[in-house]
Amino acid sequence: MAKEKKLIYFFGKGNAEGTGTMKDLLGGKGAGLAEMAKVGIPVPPGFTITTAVCNLYYDLGKRVPAGLDAEMRKYMKKIEAALGDGCVFGDANRPLLMSVRSGSKFSMPGMMDTVLNLGLNSRTVQGLIARTGNERFAWDAYRRFIQMFGNVVMGIEKEVFEEIIQEIKKKKKVRLDLDLDAADLKGLVDKYKAKIKQITKHEFPQDPWEQLTMSRDAVFNSWNNPRAVTYRRLNNIPGNLGTAVNVQAMVFGNMGSASATGVGFTRNPSTGAKEFYGEYLTNAQGEDVVAGVRTPRPIVNLGKEMPQVYRQLRAITSRLEKHYRDVQDFEFTVQEGTLYMLQTRTGKRTAPAAVKIAVDMVKEGLITKGEAVLRVEPASLDQLLHPVIDPKAKIEVIARGLPASPGAASGKVVFTADEAVEQAKKNPVILVRPETTPDDIHGMDAAKGIITARGGMTSHAAVVARGMGKPCVSGCESIMVDTKAGKLTVGKVTVKKGDYLTIDGGTGRIIIGKVPTKDPEVSGDFGTLMKWADAVRTMGVRANADIPRDARMARQFGAEGIGLCRTEHMFFAEDRLPIVQQMILATTTDNREKALAKLLPMQRADFKGLFETMDGLPVTIRLLDPPLHEFLPKREELMVETAVMKAKHASQAAIAKKEKLLHRVEELHELNPMLGHRGCRLGIVFPEITRMQTRAIIEAACDVLKKGKKVVPEIMVPLVGIGQELTNQKEIIVTTANEVMKRRGITVEYSIGTMIELPRAVIIADTIAKEAEFFSFGTNDLTQTAYGFSRDDAGKFIKYYTDHGILENDPFQVLDEEGVGYLVKLGVEKGRTTRPKLKVGICGEHGGDPASVEFCHKAKLTYVSCSPYRVPIARLAAAQARLKEKGMGASVSK
Amino acid sequence: MAKEKKLIYFFGKGNAEGTGTMKDLLGGKGAGLAEMAKVGIPVPPGFTITTAVCNLYYDLGKRVPAGLDAEMRKYMKKIEAALGDGCVFGDANRPLLMSVRSGSKFSMPGMMDTVLNLGLNSRTVQGLIARTGNERFAWDAYRRFIQMFGNVVMGIEKEVFEEIIQEIKKKKKVRLDLDLDAADLKGLVDKYKAKIKQITKHEFPQDPWEQLTMSRDAVFNSWNNPRAVTYRRLNNIPGNLGTAVNVQAMVFGNMGSASATGVGFTRNPSTGAKEFYGEYLTNAQGEDVVAGVRTPRPIVNLGKEMPQVYRQLRAITSRLEKHYRDVQDFEFTVQEGTLYMLQTRTGKRTAPAAVKIAVDMVKEGLITKGEAVLRVEPASLDQLLHPVIDPKAKIEVIARGLPASPGAASGKVVFTADEAVEQAKKNPVILVRPETTPDDIHGMDAAKGIITARGGMTSHAAVVARGMGKPCVSGCESIMVDTKAGKLTVGKVTVKKGDYLTIDGGTGRIIIGKVPTKDPEVSGDFGTLMKWADAVRTMGVRANADIPRDARMARQFGAEGIGLCRTEHMFFAEDRLPIVQQMILATTTDNREKALAKLLPMQRADFKGLFETMDGLPVTIRLLDPPLHEFLPKREELMVETAVMKAKHASQAAIAKKEKLLHRVEELHELNPMLGHRGCRLGIVFPEITRMQTRAIIEAACDVLKKGKKVVPEIMVPLVGIGQELTNQKEIIVTTANEVMKRRGITVEYSIGTMIELPRAVIIADTIAKEAEFFSFGTNDLTQTAYGFSRDDAGKFIKYYTDHGILENDPFQVLDEEGVGYLVKLGVEKGRTTRPKLKVGICGEHGGDPASVEFCHKAKLTYVSCSPYRVPIARLAAAQARLKEKGMGASVSK
Repeated sequence: MAKEKKLIYFFGKGNAEGTGTMKDLLGGKGAGLAEMAKVGIPVPPGFTITTAVCNLYYDLGKRVPAGLDAEMRKYMKKIEAALGDGCVFGDANRPLLMSVRSGSKFSMPGMMDTVLNLGLNSRTVQGLIARTGNERFAWDAYRRFIQMFGNVVMGIEKEVFEEIIQEIKKKKKVRLDLDLDAADLKGLVDKYKAKIKQITKHEFPQDPWEQLTMSRDAVFNSWNNPRAVTYRRLNNIPGNLGTAVNVQAMVFGNMGSASATGVGFTRNPSTGAKEFYGEYLTNAQGEDVVAGVRTPRPIVNLGKEMPQVYRQLRAITSRLEKHYRDVQDFEFTVQEGTLYMLQTRTGKRTAPAAVKIAVDMVKEGLITKGEAVLRVEPASLDQLLHPVIDPKAKIEVIARGLPASPGAASGKVVFTADEAVEQAKKNPVILVRPETTPDDIHGMDAAKGIITARGGMTSHAAVVARGMGKPCVSGCESIMVDTKAGKLTVGKVTVKKGDYLTIDGGTGRIIIGKVPTKDPEVSGDFGTLMKWADAVRTMGVRANADIPRDARMARQFGAEGIGLCRTEHMFFAEDRLPIVQQMILATTTDNREKALAKLLPMQRADFKGLFETMDGLPVTIRLLDPPLHEFLPKREELMVETAVMKAKHASQAAIAKKEKLLHRVEELHELNPMLGHRGCRLGIVFPEITRMQTRAIIEAACDVLKKGKKVVPEIMVPLVGIGQELTNQKEIIVTTANEVMKRRGITVEYSIGTMIELPRAVIIADTIAKEAEFFSFGTNDLTQTAYGFSRDDAGKFIKYYTDHGILENDPFQVLDEEGVGYLVKLGVEKGRTTRPKLKVGICGEHGGDPASVEFCHKAKLTYVSCSPYRVPIARLAAAQARLKEKGMGASVSK
Repeated sequence: MAKEKKLIYFFGKGNAEGTGTMKDLLGGKGAGLAEMAKVGIPVPPGFTITTAVCNLYYDLGKRVPAGLDAEMRKYMKKIEAALGDGCVFGDANRPLLMSVRSGSKFSMPGMMDTVLNLGLNSRTVQGLIARTGNERFAWDAYRRFIQMFGNVVMGIEKEVFEEIIQEIKKKKKVRLDLDLDAADLKGLVDKYKAKIKQITKHEFPQDPWEQLTMSRDAVFNSWNNPRAVTYRRLNNIPGNLGTAVNVQAMVFGNMGSASATGVGFTRNPSTGAKEFYGEYLTNAQGEDVVAGVRTPRPIVNLGKEMPQVYRQLRAITSRLEKHYRDVQDFEFTVQEGTLYMLQTRTGKRTAPAAVKIAVDMVKEGLITKGEAVLRVEPASLDQLLHPVIDPKAKIEVIARGLPASPGAASGKVVFTADEAVEQAKKNPVILVRPETTPDDIHGMDAAKGIITARGGMTSHAAVVARGMGKPCVSGCESIMVDTKAGKLTVGKVTVKKGDYLTIDGGTGRIIIGKVPTKDPEVSGDFGTLMKWADAVRTMGVRANADIPRDARMARQFGAEGIGLCRTEHMFFAEDRLPIVQQMILATTTDNREKALAKLLPMQRADFKGLFETMDGLPVTIRLLDPPLHEFLPKREELMVETAVMKAKHASQAAIAKKEKLLHRVEELHELNPMLGHRGCRLGIVFPEITRMQTRAIIEAACDVLKKGKKVVPEIMVPLVGIGQELTNQKEIIVTTANEVMKRRGITVEYSIGTMIELPRAVIIADTIAKEAEFFSFGTNDLTQTAYGFSRDDAGKFIKYYTDHGILENDPFQVLDEEGVGYLVKLGVEKGRTTRPKLKVGICGEHGGDPASVEFCHKAKLTYVSCSPYRVPIARLAAAQARLKEKGMGASVSK
């Protein structure tokens, strides 16, 4: 850039010195104006001072390079010539007014400064009056200019001007700015000028050229205002890009009945239908369309009012859509019969519209299938897969929590899992808990939606709800839950057991009463788009599923296997928990084995169901993972019960029984269960658990093979951090599997792998890969241990961190590439030095986050695994990652 | 080794084919025998079959290479010639008997096999009788040979032979083997042979050559017996070294009154005094000296009984000590007036002896100061720094736990911290807790020793007790503590409050009653040795100390600064806890600041005390680290109290008050506090805490500077995992410090650094080093997060892991080089790419572990910091690490 000599680029009247590809030098807006001008679309003429000048400005200690002012004067002449209406910048009779706008390579909406109506002063305002015949318009334009210039260029607080207007309105006893007449506005101009003098000790500049150079420098300075700096930091925009300055002739839609202004879309942004869509007002300014003082008319009306302009507009916008090959969101102004395009940009759209438009445009030959795949934001697919609050419904939001699992649901409030099961027989219920634990699973299963007062986006409640495809609002800290009294309070609102609540898991809103919801319409286009995505992507997508119902859902959503079956979820079933507890409370191996023997047929049946459902697709089964005390009554509850029994003089026998249970629970109690006796540490200390689970898996596989179906079991050992741990478990698995296969006379093709979810496992991944036939990154635990964050507890300060810019994202939601990503890449690399074709997946929550899916693709993972409802998102994100890798730019409009 | 052609090496009669340096090829024993023979020391002649042959044996599928047997016959002739007494191997009249022993490069005591008296059969036993004139001796030798050969070579269980002996003794109604006469032993030989025939279907081999080759192969095979394989794995000895086989002529000390046998040391191994030390028996075998059937005489007596032999022995052993330049532990046998040395090896010694011997030998010019430094095992210094159980006392050990903090102490048992404080006013007390928490600190401070039922070597109790230099036995799981009833039970023993217990923190023993203890005598030699160590080492040694008393101790022990001052320990003091609680319970910043204002003068006084004590040495102060709820009453206890109050119908007001406290405790409750809202996360969310602590530090520094003393404060931000965290805290610290310095008009030279204790901090260490002026590795937390182990909970399965060979060491005790060490090295490397001279320390528990200190030296750390009592250990270990780096071998005798 330092070598770039040309400081200014002209655009206007079918001509431009720049092009649409020069965003680096001209900024997004400047490049867009150049492109429109070049292809002959009428834009008000202007010029762009390059980003290179901005950088020079800073290099020179906030001074513009020599010769810039002279160049600007030369270019102003070009503008006057292009307009050809006799208007001249600074001319007292026919004054040309200008706008001065920032424009950097990446859009930074509202972060930098703009000045409009530049060129007005005590003399030129008279020329404007003469030219427009509209005194009020001219004085209004002038006072707006002073207000904007005073704030942006001279640094005076907006409130200063606001106070002066309020004073006048009060005196006149009117409410709206519109109620002020020309004389009022003229008075306002004088008052503004006096105030500026008072504050700054300087006169408001009358010389239009001084106005222009001061505004230009103000735009350069605004590149480094605190707002812009913060925005760039949060959005990873480099600070050395600089901003361009666009100086453009003003046009006015309020110069009479042959003038108008409007906005529109080339297709319906809500439905995606191919129809011209928008609205306009005659004799009005752009802001009037938005302000709602006059009701704008549908754009088709323009065809009757100004048929020629309308035809021209349709032709231009069609051309723009073809040119940009995407839906355009445009602004236009008609000044005395002449159409000017002020802006065109990619139109924002809803998720269903995005899908329809992408598929339609492929059919129309406008874009390729690859481009269509890139046109839809993966995360937005959630809108297509879950019911939403009816947008027409009137609602009263009483609290907001984290949008933990999307979808909307209404139901009667219950406060315990047991109540949920009971009440759900009669009515839909919403389960409200301070936080959930695995104990609550049956209640969550029975409820239509879940609310928790504590816990983050990856708390137990959130993870399980997403797995179930059920709406959940977590970490709603403003709610006080009183489980015993059966009520919750938020501020002054109290909601009792049995009252109706509605939750919107997509936004985190909690709404009082029963609100109608709308089932989304999943059109055929959705299926078409997903097929195109699947054809493109190279990374596999599996689902996390524990039971056949989830597995069926996963297949419906296109999963290519189960990447994570959490066997412990099977342990929490109502009929099994007592047996599991019996196993845990056993003090001898013998008694433990007796309980395990009872669990065996149940686990075998579970696995059989999964294998049959997946019919030949791989099923990764993780051996028992959570600490055993999760299956027992809570320690503190037992303590309370025991103490209360004693206080109430219950029988010695009853107390002794309770105390015995408490004693065992105490023995198993851990201060930090996340870092405690869990994962493979269980299977090592209690090998009989691993033996039972292996037996159940291999026996189930034998049963299904016998029926002539294919089975691909992958046995996964959790939480390995030491080479010998895997060696130990693998030996038990192989020995047990061999016994079963010998007994059954059937050979099962199974593999043994491990979770990589501890930093130490990453470090010794080369050693682990000697034994492991596959890796699956547990990025939840890896994030916990890399950061030293407990998923269950970190919610509070992570929110503080993201609010205060210490973290960009919650690392439990978006995979932290710098830290956790480093570990993932290191683990893949080390693992494949030992076993070059090592299959590597990821089964943390990140498997369903689009940015994380892209990272996984780049890190050369074999597959990602996520909850069934996120499978389509992961498929689309994986396809986009592949396309980007092939050099196709992202062109998703968010 | 494959090229090594020579299979056998001879030694004996002032001659040897090998040398003492050939341990690789001849094993330790073979090399030692060769060396002794070479320098003319009388050893029974023999030959060594090399370790290369052992490897060949395995390469050939358990066959010896061709020609080995022929070589052995040739070498046997050499032995016969060297002896020159007419004895010949296998000769019926003057049979030569042999021993066959293993011997690998590294000593593997008792792991491999030995056969003695080889060469006896029905014919040669008669020759032995004739030659010795001692029929009982000959038959006893024969039956022992059969027993040993039957077991080692023929694989018959030892119990088989034992049963036969028992039968005969029962029949004769005698108790000892010695009570059996020649006829009995002859009968035993026959019975043994019959039994062998019955079990193996083979005759016991009569051919001495067959006996010899079978024994040789048995020794080779024993290299891979399970015992040896496990031992090698646990001691990191490679499996491909192989064992040598030493075949040596037997000599007998029981051939009459001119024969004798004995053992001795060249210096007193208990005190280190330079005196000839040992004992002997005439007409006896080696095992008789040990067996204690006859009382051996002090070795000086030998000077009267066999003056010539005695002079020869003194001359030889003096020579050996000079030759090996260390205390020798030797065995000798006098056979019919001829002295034979059977073994000489480095003598084991107590820690005080090790120090004295090392210093004496430097004075004698025998070794260099560097060698002296290498002669003392750093960990053994613990014995010099703490009282020990009087070795003469009779004790009853009732339980064993982990040796968590060394030293011995007796006291009356108490079960709560408050009781400890109360009772300690009258009597010494031992505090017994299920586990300790920071709440117990005042009780631990008052007690003479601490016992916990739960927790590992790095549990809270262990860490704090070591810091206090107080004995502690942790994780004594066999004890059932009933705090409420005021008693503990171990099996059938019950100990009540007020009963005396004695604990030995160096061994983990818990002893009933009051046992006399002995204060160690720290001689001047200790100081001399430490001075030499300091002169050698290049790595610094600091201490972890929180209060002036600890700091004084640290300086006495030679610490060069404070590497870790844990400010939270100041928060637990009795007079402060209520204010700390007030701060935590504050719901507004304002109220929080009021409480902090009360803490400020207290913290300032603390720091002033530390700065004054350290007088110019650096003091690293860590800002508040633990989760806040550690300072509040326990959640479960409040729950119980509330429930009991309700059950007993307490007043509503009292219940409400308790519930309010419970509510706040609930809000702060965390499922995994180790991974929760702690460390710099506190100072970020509550910046007023960081401000108060910084103010206290800088104000204290100003006060001390004013007195003309030097101050070197290093402010350390804990638990950083994200770059912005440090940026945030640094800004607060710098701003606050500037304010204080401006106000006081004094400039304090302070630095700001951070703990590196999270894997993510390691990964971004280059970024962190931009802000941090020093790093301190918190290897406790780093071990927790790398492994996903909670220090508080992992005790149970870590013990299982080390017992079952899944882990070699508890990684909280010995720094895990493979995993955590990788992170330390990576962190140092990354940090120094940004800041080449970055000061890097370690302040985890590992700072006092010798192996970990050596690792830290290799990882180029600037210093280690450990509890004051371990400072001498770290100083010595650091010196040894430096010496080893310079190529001086370790020659510590353990």
